Amino acid sequence: MDIRFAKRMQGLRASEIRELLKHTQNPEVISFAGGLPAAELFPVPELASLAHEIVLQEGCRVLQYSTTEGDPGLRRAIAGRMKATRGIEAAAGEILVTCGSQQGVDLTGKLFLDEGDVVLCESPTYIGAINAFLAYRPRFVEVPTDEDGMVIPELERLLEGEPAAKLIYVIPDFQNPSGRRWSRERRCRFMEVVRRYRVPVVEDAPYAELYFEGTPLPALKSLDEDGLVIYLGTFSKILCPGLRIGWLFAEPSLFEKYVLAKQGADLHTSSFTQRLIGAYMERYDLDANVRRIREAYRHRRDAMIETMEQALPAGVDFTRPGGGLFLWAELPPELDARALLALSLKRQVAFVPGGAFFPNGGHENTLRLNFSAMPEERIEEGIRRLGGVIRAALGRPEAQPEDTEKNGISHRCAG
Amino acid sequence: MDIRFAKRMQGLRASEIRELLKHTQNPEVISFAGGLPAAELFPVPELASLAHEIVLQEGCRVLQYSTTEGDPGLRRAIAGRMKATRGIEAAAGEILVTCGSQQGVDLTGKLFLDEGDVVLCESPTYIGAINAFLAYRPRFVEVPTDEDGMVIPELERLLEGEPAAKLIYVIPDFQNPSGRRWSRERRCRFMEVVRRYRVPVVEDAPYAELYFEGTPLPALKSLDEDGLVIYLGTFSKILCPGLRIGWLFAEPSLFEKYVLAKQGADLHTSSFTQRLIGAYMERYDLDANVRRIREAYRHRRDAMIETMEQALPAGVDFTRPGGGLFLWAELPPELDARALLALSLKRQVAFVPGGAFFPNGGHENTLRLNFSAMPEERIEEGIRRLGGVIRAALGRPEAQPEDTEKNGISHRCAG
Repeated sequence: MDIRFAKRMQGLRASEIRELLKHTQNPEVISFAGGLPAAELFPVPELASLAHEIVLQEGCRVLQYSTTEGDPGLRRAIAGRMKATRGIEAAAGEILVTCGSQQGVDLTGKLFLDEGDVVLCESPTYIGAINAFLAYRPRFVEVPTDEDGMVIPELERLLEGEPAAKLIYVIPDFQNPSGRRWSRERRCRFMEVVRRYRVPVVEDAPYAELYFEGTPLPALKSLDEDGLVIYLGTFSKILCPGLRIGWLFAEPSLFEKYVLAKQGADLHTSSFTQRLIGAYMERYDLDANVRRIREAYRHRRDAMIETMEQALPAGVDFTRPGGGLFLWAELPPELDARALLALSLKRQVAFVPGGAFFPNGGHENTLRLNFSAMPEERIEEGIRRLGGVIRAALGRPEAQPEDTEKNGISHRCAG
Repeated sequence: MDIRFAKRMQGLRASEIRELLKHTQNPEVISFAGGLPAAELFPVPELASLAHEIVLQEGCRVLQYSTTEGDPGLRRAIAGRMKATRGIEAAAGEILVTCGSQQGVDLTGKLFLDEGDVVLCESPTYIGAINAFLAYRPRFVEVPTDEDGMVIPELERLLEGEPAAKLIYVIPDFQNPSGRRWSRERRCRFMEVVRRYRVPVVEDAPYAELYFEGTPLPALKSLDEDGLVIYLGTFSKILCPGLRIGWLFAEPSLFEKYVLAKQGADLHTSSFTQRLIGAYMERYDLDANVRRIREAYRHRRDAMIETMEQALPAGVDFTRPGGGLFLWAELPPELDARALLALSLKRQVAFVPGGAFFPNGGHENTLRLNFSAMPEERIEEGIRRLGGVIRAALGRPEAQPEDTEKNGISHRCAG
């Protein structure tokens, strides 16, 4: 059949992350490729008991259709939590419950983007946002970033040259893929520039609560006096992702458009999974759950960084994230991370080549590593194998001191 | 703030159905406005027990991220059920699980529609499909329908005049809003025309299993030899809508595009609610559940039609659906159903004015009535009140014989 698709479908391609996930379901593979939270930290008995109680006592309501905006109790709980954890003042009536924060990104594309409109984003940026926006055929302008976040003079220069800029998409806290967090000063200067140019900003904040040291930094939304920031939150990383509950907070004139767009997209998010999370927040201590996650991920990050420092050859740079789920590495320029992945999979280790995180391409010598999804021993083993693969690719396959240690560790794991 | 939205947002307006739903949550109101299934028929204890068991035993999996395509067990169960109930041959790998069939409609718009593309649809058609497609700025061409379905010579004439037609959207079984079902002959002739013009068809089939008499008629998809039909199914009307589980079946070259579009839209549908429905189908008898629903709705339809025959003045025509959830009425041409609704709400009765179901407007003297959501007594009471409102609007407010009966019924209900 000669099918005529919409023009927007030309640009869509399979997400490498999700395609990879399919090939890494083999438990033999040590996969740093996904972005999975640690399933062993999900509060399983609590959610099981609540799920039973809610269906039994409220089945007629939670199994029925409900409003597009979302469950009133959950929206109140989200508003309260945003205030407590992020310093954001929101009314429950201003929260739209979404099917994960991914849906918040997609609806934002739907609301704002005509073909050819400019989206500014960090370089690199979240591949899922690139793919969601691509369906609306924008032009991406990548803004350089350093260890403190977006480089503000570069942002100003690019905004000056792009009067048609429609949207700025950022992840200021422990960004996917880089793991970087914007400094407080960078946040303030960013908001000054945004206020001057009056471009709507999407603040995607899935990892903001997952800081391993010190204190949280203010959300851009908490610094927003003009209603320019659209804030996306999610329970995926602080509770569990399989219930698909995220939320969106935007000023009223935007909010009503988002509700219309969501109505067309899927009517509403599951009444049951919304209520399940609302009940969990009423009955249990979500903050304590987040503290457990931080603690576990901090150990995993430490294991990954320490092993990388030992096992990787000179010339490989990497970030040392203060939170989140990811670490970002840059290989010597002669290496191609896609080719490296093929070699690495032969040694049963997976990661995501970094090129996919740059909407305009390039940077093929970068890669993203996830440290949240497995215990320290497997992280150490996987990084050692990866180190061997990189050394081999560089033509330096000789045994390094860490190989000896690796054997020791492997022995300890098996025992 | 001077916000520049995408052009597509200009056409989006609040769905009257959902806005109305907000005002009819008052239990005093007898609402024929929504499209709610009967909540008292949800298998609450069964789902409560399964929900507990699944989270407890499979929490690490069902609370985790999963693949965009959907839960493998559920996809197998859906494929098996489509074969058994609709005569459709599908492999599990060709089923995409969606967030209700509404998402199937939205993704279809995303896949096919560029601005100005033509969508052919029944006249009237489902308001939720109009709103989903509107976000992609098509031009709607309404194809006349009669009691046997789409009028085929009209379809041919319109297709001849619209070589750029991109999509045909239809609900052949107990259509929302008309309640009509296409005859077998009409289905066959429709597929002949479609084959000739090679235009993709969306067959939206939420009500197909809810026939009250006789036997089901073949799905268009079961007559489709060329992969032209995209079939949308849902559990919302045969089990419950609050879990938000629907599905889409399309030929492989379309299927992979749908997966990409869904990936961008929300990554995947809740792993937990998918598994919950899959487990229900394994452990319980969904067919028996559907038989219970048919039986209950048949009584409600009978009560509505019998009361309409008694209580409505001459000049009001209405359909007598053989299944589904809705009945469609046409008032004398001098009446405007929107104005009538305002009067009707004063007597605590709600319905949806029919004009909203015509993408190109007009037909303000029509209305849609839902009969699935309440017991017979309330249906009878509500229709009697509505009869009084219509008579008053026609300037014929004198008591009719049915008013006497109404008092008798009211007394009986109160007793």
